[in-house]
Amino acid sequence: MNLFHTPQEMTTWAQEQRRSGRRIGFVPTMGYLHAGHLSLVTEAKKNADVIVVSIFVNPTQFGPHEDFEKYPRDEAHDMTLCKEAGVAAVFLPTPSAMYAPNASVFVDESTLQYGLCGERRPGHFRGVCTVVAKLFNIVLPDVAVFGQKDFQQASIIQRMVRDLNFPIEIVVAPTLREPDGLAMSSRNVYLSADERKRALGLSRALDAISGDTPCRVMCDVLEQHGLRVDYAEIVDADTLVPVEKVTKGNVALIAAYCGKTRLIDNRIL
Amino acid sequence: MNLFHTPQEMTTWAQEQRRSGRRIGFVPTMGYLHAGHLSLVTEAKKNADVIVVSIFVNPTQFGPHEDFEKYPRDEAHDMTLCKEAGVAAVFLPTPSAMYAPNASVFVDESTLQYGLCGERRPGHFRGVCTVVAKLFNIVLPDVAVFGQKDFQQASIIQRMVRDLNFPIEIVVAPTLREPDGLAMSSRNVYLSADERKRALGLSRALDAISGDTPCRVMCDVLEQHGLRVDYAEIVDADTLVPVEKVTKGNVALIAAYCGKTRLIDNRIL
Repeated sequence: MNLFHTPQEMTTWAQEQRRSGRRIGFVPTMGYLHAGHLSLVTEAKKNADVIVVSIFVNPTQFGPHEDFEKYPRDEAHDMTLCKEAGVAAVFLPTPSAMYAPNASVFVDESTLQYGLCGERRPGHFRGVCTVVAKLFNIVLPDVAVFGQKDFQQASIIQRMVRDLNFPIEIVVAPTLREPDGLAMSSRNVYLSADERKRALGLSRALDAISGDTPCRVMCDVLEQHGLRVDYAEIVDADTLVPVEKVTKGNVALIAAYCGKTRLIDNRIL
Repeated sequence: MNLFHTPQEMTTWAQEQRRSGRRIGFVPTMGYLHAGHLSLVTEAKKNADVIVVSIFVNPTQFGPHEDFEKYPRDEAHDMTLCKEAGVAAVFLPTPSAMYAPNASVFVDESTLQYGLCGERRPGHFRGVCTVVAKLFNIVLPDVAVFGQKDFQQASIIQRMVRDLNFPIEIVVAPTLREPDGLAMSSRNVYLSADERKRALGLSRALDAISGDTPCRVMCDVLEQHGLRVDYAEIVDADTLVPVEKVTKGNVALIAAYCGKTRLIDNRIL
């Protein structure tokens, strides 16, 4: 397995793969890999000849009071998992290899980022769009796979690919869950034993959706689990605008604090 | 010569070229081609096997009171010139092929665009960055050539390529001039016979730079030619920040109105 630390090395390898006629599949991650990430690699393999995983905790998508510093990292274990999963190359840059001190060009989305996580995390999706555009230009994938767990992110990336004409197919893969239903997330490691139990409230709230006030139902379940609701909404899958009347294909999305840990989950209805 | 009207057709052709091992050279234009554009094609040929010219009067880089509607167009003549110049493919899309009605992703530059044309044309460089990023992803060039006449634009594009890691070499080619010194521009067609003479004030002002108050000298020459000064500045070539004391490598830039026509010119000192 190849390991690249600079954009130049990564791009040189990617261009060689393309010249050799191989399709590149790409899974961008922030590391601390779990079975959810590996399912994205499996999905990528269905659509490509060689798989690249990037591991980069991108500082520009964290707010000043968010968890950039304490975001979990375990590069040695990540490398082992990638090797076992048959990944061809890992791209693991430092922030200084990714951002010039006077970096001044950004990619911004101006519609879908309002509401939901974008509204609560100002600048988050500007950071996400910019780093993903950079990674696309560095890794030169034919196909890139994102997890449905970050539904708003996946929608915004698909919009970016359309609006900036990236010649890349985007696949959104289903959320992997623990046996009891908790969506897999690197941030689950933050949870104490008690919080881990209460975190089940997110998937339980999605299970409970029914009746004329489905958002109220979700909030009730979240609060019964001792979770602080950040949002619990049902939106149109294309526009991400909250719907008046729920119909098939709408998406229910939740963000809630479990202690100090902010967790998200969603379900296509 | 190939003519493509949709991004899909253009990208399919570009990917075939790349698979065949050919280097693609790219000259993005707004059409109404003149010898200045053709010199960019000549420059591109030095660095590539096949040349693509795009012709697209991009609505998003014009302000509400600017000359989008009346910007000169002559596609038949443009095609003849491209054919004679040995261009392999012309990309000539409609606005609706380039922008979805709900397009919401933009590329923005946050430092170099302040001052000079960016300050006078709000949103202009956001439009330029976005359309050039789109064209890069559609045409997939190895090298792209821009004219020095649009110095601030060339600086911002180079910054965009660096900050978004486009795997593209940018070449900035010298400004072509009429025999009397006027910088070639599609907008010169707007000038009446009298205005055409007075337009010489721009290159004359750049010739006249000297002494302790070089910007004042430029303004004087412009005003002597009956031109209304939009700006006349000397800036650092990398930061585009006005300099206190002029040194070699600084850039003098002018924008001035000749009647209703806004003209620009510059010189590296």
